Amino acid sequence: MTDALTWRYAVKKMDPAKPATAIDVQAILDAIQLAPTSSGTQPFKVLVITGNAIREKLRAASFDQGQVTECSHLLVFTAWDNYTAGRIDAVVDHHAAERPGTRKALDGYYENLKSMYLPRDAEVNFEHAARQAYIALGFAMYKAAELRVETCPMEGFDAAEVDKILGLKSQNLRSICYLAIGTRDAENDWLAPMAKVRKSQETLFDHID
Amino acid sequence: MTDALTWRYAVKKMDPAKPATAIDVQAILDAIQLAPTSSGTQPFKVLVITGNAIREKLRAASFDQGQVTECSHLLVFTAWDNYTAGRIDAVVDHHAAERPGTRKALDGYYENLKSMYLPRDAEVNFEHAARQAYIALGFAMYKAAELRVETCPMEGFDAAEVDKILGLKSQNLRSICYLAIGTRDAENDWLAPMAKVRKSQETLFDHID
Repeated sequence: MTDALTWRYAVKKMDPAKPATAIDVQAILDAIQLAPTSSGTQPFKVLVITGNAIREKLRAASFDQGQVTECSHLLVFTAWDNYTAGRIDAVVDHHAAERPGTRKALDGYYENLKSMYLPRDAEVNFEHAARQAYIALGFAMYKAAELRVETCPMEGFDAAEVDKILGLKSQNLRSICYLAIGTRDAENDWLAPMAKVRKSQETLFDHID
Repeated sequence: MTDALTWRYAVKKMDPAKPATAIDVQAILDAIQLAPTSSGTQPFKVLVITGNAIREKLRAASFDQGQVTECSHLLVFTAWDNYTAGRIDAVVDHHAAERPGTRKALDGYYENLKSMYLPRDAEVNFEHAARQAYIALGFAMYKAAELRVETCPMEGFDAAEVDKILGLKSQNLRSICYLAIGTRDAENDWLAPMAKVRKSQETLFDHID
C-alpha cells in the first residue's frame, strides 16, 4: 500500500497557527518545476500567496472557503490563456541553449507544433495548457504527501473574479485551481475521521491482453 | 533536490526485452486509484494494455511511435465524455455506503453539483474530467519515478481513431493520454544523454505576500 497517498486527504479545516515550513514549501515548488509537460512548454505559472489581505479577497471569491486564509501558503495554479508563437519560440530558445547542437531539430519539431497549435481556438489551447498544469498539481500533492505536509486542492472559486484580483488577464493567464498548503485542524475537520473512498480497481481499470 | 523527479524523463526508446514487473505496475495502478479528483468523482478509466496485436493497431494511430509497442504496459487514460446524473448518483451511493450517516449531506452536496454540471456542454464536462485524469497521470509518473520504473507520457495520437480501436464511445469514454511503462534502451534513446530542461523558478512562480 502507498502510505503517503493513503495518509493524505483534502483538508477541509486548517490551523493557521501551524504553517508549513519554508523548506517543505520549497520542495513542493521543486516538484512543480520538475513536472513534465507536453513538448516541454510548461504552459503555466503558479502564484505562491502568503499575504492575508489578498487572501481575504480571494476567499470572498471562493464561496468563503476557510482554507484560503487558514492555510499558510495558497498556491494558485494558472494556465496560459493560449499558445502563441512568442511563447513557443521562447521554449525553443531555452532548450537550444541548454542542449547545444539541437537547434535545427528543435526548430523542426516546434515549427510543426506551431502549425498545429496556433490555428486552434484559444479555448482549446487553454484547456490543453490546463491539463499540463494538472500534472504539476498532481506532483505537488504527491510531494506534499511524502513530506506529510497537508494540502487541499480547490476548484470552487469564481475564476473570472480571481483573475481580476490577481491581475492575470494582462499576463495572459487564467486561474484554474488552488492548492492550499498548511496543517489540519483535526478536531474541527469533518473529513479528518472519515474513511477514504475510492472506486475499486475493477471499476477504474480494464486489462487488455 | 528531488532525486526521483530529476532521474525520470520521457523515454523515447524502450527495450521490449526488459518489461516492468507486475509488482511495480500494480503500485502505479494503486497510485492512480488513490489520486484525488474533484468532488471524488474519479471521472476516468485507465486501460492497461499488454497485448501486441492491439498495440500494433494503436501504434498505427499514433504516428508510428515505437514506445507504444516497445513498452511492456501501455496505459491509456480515458476520461468520461460527460457528467451524467447516473454517474454522479453512483458516486453518491458509493460514498454513502462507505461513510455511514452521511447520505443526507451527500445528497445536498451532489444535487448542487448536478445543478452545475448537468446543464453544461458535454465538452466542458469532458475537459473537466480530463483535468482530473491528469492528476492521476501525474501520480502515476511520480510513483513510477520513485520505483525507478521508466515511463513516457504521450498525447500524440489520433484520439478518434484510438477511441474506435478500443471501443470507447459505447462506454462514453474518450482517450486523452498514454503512459508507456517499460525500460529505456539507453544506447538508442536520443533523449537519454540530454540535459533536463526546466524553466527557472523565477519564471514559473510569483511570490505574493
